[in-house]
Amino acid sequence: MTTVAAYAAPAAKAPLERTTIERREVGEHDILIDIKFAGICHSDIHQAREGWGEAIFPMVPGHEIAGVVSEVGPGVTKFQVGDRVGVGCMVDSCRECDNCEAGLEQYCLNGATMTYNGIGKDGEPTHGGYAQTIVVDENYVVRIPEGLSLDEAAPLLCAGITTYSPLRHWNAGPGKKVAIVGLGGLGHVAVKIAHALGAEVTVLSQSLRKKDDGLKLGADHYYATADPATFENLRGSLDLIVSTVSAPLDLGAYLSLLKTDGALVNVGAPEEPVSLNLFSVIGGRKTLAGSSIGGIRETQEMLDFCAEHGIGAEIELIAAAEINEAYERVLNSDVRYRFVIDTATI
Amino acid sequence: MTTVAAYAAPAAKAPLERTTIERREVGEHDILIDIKFAGICHSDIHQAREGWGEAIFPMVPGHEIAGVVSEVGPGVTKFQVGDRVGVGCMVDSCRECDNCEAGLEQYCLNGATMTYNGIGKDGEPTHGGYAQTIVVDENYVVRIPEGLSLDEAAPLLCAGITTYSPLRHWNAGPGKKVAIVGLGGLGHVAVKIAHALGAEVTVLSQSLRKKDDGLKLGADHYYATADPATFENLRGSLDLIVSTVSAPLDLGAYLSLLKTDGALVNVGAPEEPVSLNLFSVIGGRKTLAGSSIGGIRETQEMLDFCAEHGIGAEIELIAAAEINEAYERVLNSDVRYRFVIDTATI
Repeated sequence: MTTVAAYAAPAAKAPLERTTIERREVGEHDILIDIKFAGICHSDIHQAREGWGEAIFPMVPGHEIAGVVSEVGPGVTKFQVGDRVGVGCMVDSCRECDNCEAGLEQYCLNGATMTYNGIGKDGEPTHGGYAQTIVVDENYVVRIPEGLSLDEAAPLLCAGITTYSPLRHWNAGPGKKVAIVGLGGLGHVAVKIAHALGAEVTVLSQSLRKKDDGLKLGADHYYATADPATFENLRGSLDLIVSTVSAPLDLGAYLSLLKTDGALVNVGAPEEPVSLNLFSVIGGRKTLAGSSIGGIRETQEMLDFCAEHGIGAEIELIAAAEINEAYERVLNSDVRYRFVIDTATI
Repeated sequence: MTTVAAYAAPAAKAPLERTTIERREVGEHDILIDIKFAGICHSDIHQAREGWGEAIFPMVPGHEIAGVVSEVGPGVTKFQVGDRVGVGCMVDSCRECDNCEAGLEQYCLNGATMTYNGIGKDGEPTHGGYAQTIVVDENYVVRIPEGLSLDEAAPLLCAGITTYSPLRHWNAGPGKKVAIVGLGGLGHVAVKIAHALGAEVTVLSQSLRKKDDGLKLGADHYYATADPATFENLRGSLDLIVSTVSAPLDLGAYLSLLKTDGALVNVGAPEEPVSLNLFSVIGGRKTLAGSSIGGIRETQEMLDFCAEHGIGAEIELIAAAEINEAYERVLNSDVRYRFVIDTATI
C-alpha cells in the first residue's frame, strides 16, 4: 500500500478536505497513474451529498482523470511508463457477462466497479481522481491521444463519453436535427461532438445567457426553454434530443419537439421521479430512453474522435483548495464549462 | 345522405341508446359498407366517457369494423360489391405529409381523421361502427382475407394492428423474449401474434386467473404481477414488453425486467400521468416508448399474417342492446376476450 494525498468528503454533505488515502500495490495487470488533472462532474456532488442514495465515506470523488503512467505491472501489455492516459467512471467489471463481452462494461450484469463510491474486487472502497495517484487495471485505462491536452481531455472521460455514446447510438449525423438540453459540463461537449458528427445542432437552454458561447461551440440554433414560443416553434422538428440536465424536465413538452420515431435520451438524472403522460410517446411512436457513459472501447474511440476533431472541454482550472467553492458554483450553473482540478495543488 | 340505425352515447358518461345517424352519399372514391360486426374496444369507453378529454356527442363509437361492400363510387378501383372488408381507427388523413407518404397515416402530421369522435374533411363529426353502414374512402379500407371469419376479424382492426405494429417494429421474432402485459382484448391478440412471429412469449397479468387461456393462446410463460417474486424472477430477462393495459403501471418495475437495450412499449394509455425515475432507463440504456395502431398498408399486412396463421380474436358476440352491460364488464376485465356487436341487432 502507498499513502497518497487526496481531497475527500468525510461524510455526506460535509465540505471536502485534504487527507491521505491508501492506494494498492501495482499488481500484475495494474498501472500506476500519476494524476495530473481531475474534472469536477455534477455527479461528484450528487454522490458526495448522497443525492442519489446512500454512499461510502470518506469519499474521494473524481472520475474524469487524466495523467501519466508512472509504473506498470509485469503483465501489462498495453501501456508503458510515460504514456498519457485517462480513467473514467469505471475501474473494473466482471469481464464475463454478455455486456462485458460486447464492450458494454458500463452495463456489466454483475455490476461494474465504479471509480469511486464503489467496492473493488479486493473488497475495499474505491477512491477517485481528486488524488495524486491511482492504480487501475490496464483494461480500464484509455490512451489520451497526442494533440489533446491533459487538462482539456480530463472531462472527456465522463462528459465526453456520456454524450458521445448516445449521439452515436441514436445516429446523430448528417441530415439529423439534434438538440442538446443544457449547456453545462456535459452539454457543451455534446454540442461540439454532435457538430463534429455532422448533425444540425440546437441548444435548448433555460435562457439565452450563453447563446454566443453555444454558437461558437458549434450549435446552429439556440433557444431559451423559459420562452413558451420555443416549444411552439420547434414542435415536431427534431430527430434526437439528448438531455444533459439533472433538473426534472417537463418530459411531455420535450417529447412534443420530436418528429415521429424521434428519441429523447436522458443522460442527466434528477434525484426525484418525473411525471409522464404516456400519450406523449404513443403519438408519433416516440422513445424516451437513457444512456450511461460508454464502454471502454467506445471511450477510446471517443477520445480518438475528439483528437481528430480538435475537441477538448472548455475548462476553468482550479487548485484543490477551491473544490468546495467550485461545487457551489456548479450548483449555481456558474462555470464555463468544467472545473478541472490541478492535482499538483493537492 | 342516408339515414341508418346506430347506437350512440348522447352525452359524456350517458348510456348508449339506439338512434339514427346520417351517412354521406357514396362519393367518387367511396365505398358503402354493410357493417356486419363491430368490436368493443376499451378506448370506445374512454372516449364515450370523456376519459381522454373533451369529445363530440352524440357519439357512435366503434373502430373495429368488419362488413361487406354494398356499393362503390365510380372512381373506386380496389374493391367491388360483395368484398369482405374492414375499417379500423382511421377513415382519412392528409395523404401529403411525410408520414402519410411513408404509410404511417396514423401519425399524419396534419392529423388523421378518426373513425369516430373526429371531424371529417366535410366538416361533419365522424361516426363509427356501432351502426348498420359506413361510407369510407377506399384508401382507408382493408380487405379481410378468406379464412378469417368477419366476427373474429373485426377486433383485429384495432386490437390486432395495435399490437402487431410494435411487435414488428421492435423486432419480436425467433430468439426474442417478449412479454405482453395484460391478457385482455389487445393482450390476447398480442400473445397470438407474438407467438406466430416466433418469439418466446410471457404473459404478465395481475393474477393467474387466465393462465390456462394464456398458455392455450400461445404463451410460453405466465406470471402474476401481483406477486413480487415475478419481478425478481424475470429481472433483466426480456427483450421487449408490450403493455396493453390502460391502468397506470409501476414503470420502473417493468423496466427492470428488460435486458440492456430492451424496450417497454405502451399501447394502452392511462388517463393520468405516471411517475418515472429516469435511472430506470439510464441503467441498461432502456427504451420507454409508445405506439399507436398502424398504417393502412401495415393493417392489410397484419390481416394477411393473421389469416395465414389462423389468428382471429376470441370473442363474445352480443346484441346491440347489451352494449352498456358489456361496457361495465370490460371495465371489470370480465370478457374473454373481446365483445363484438352483431350489428344486425341494431
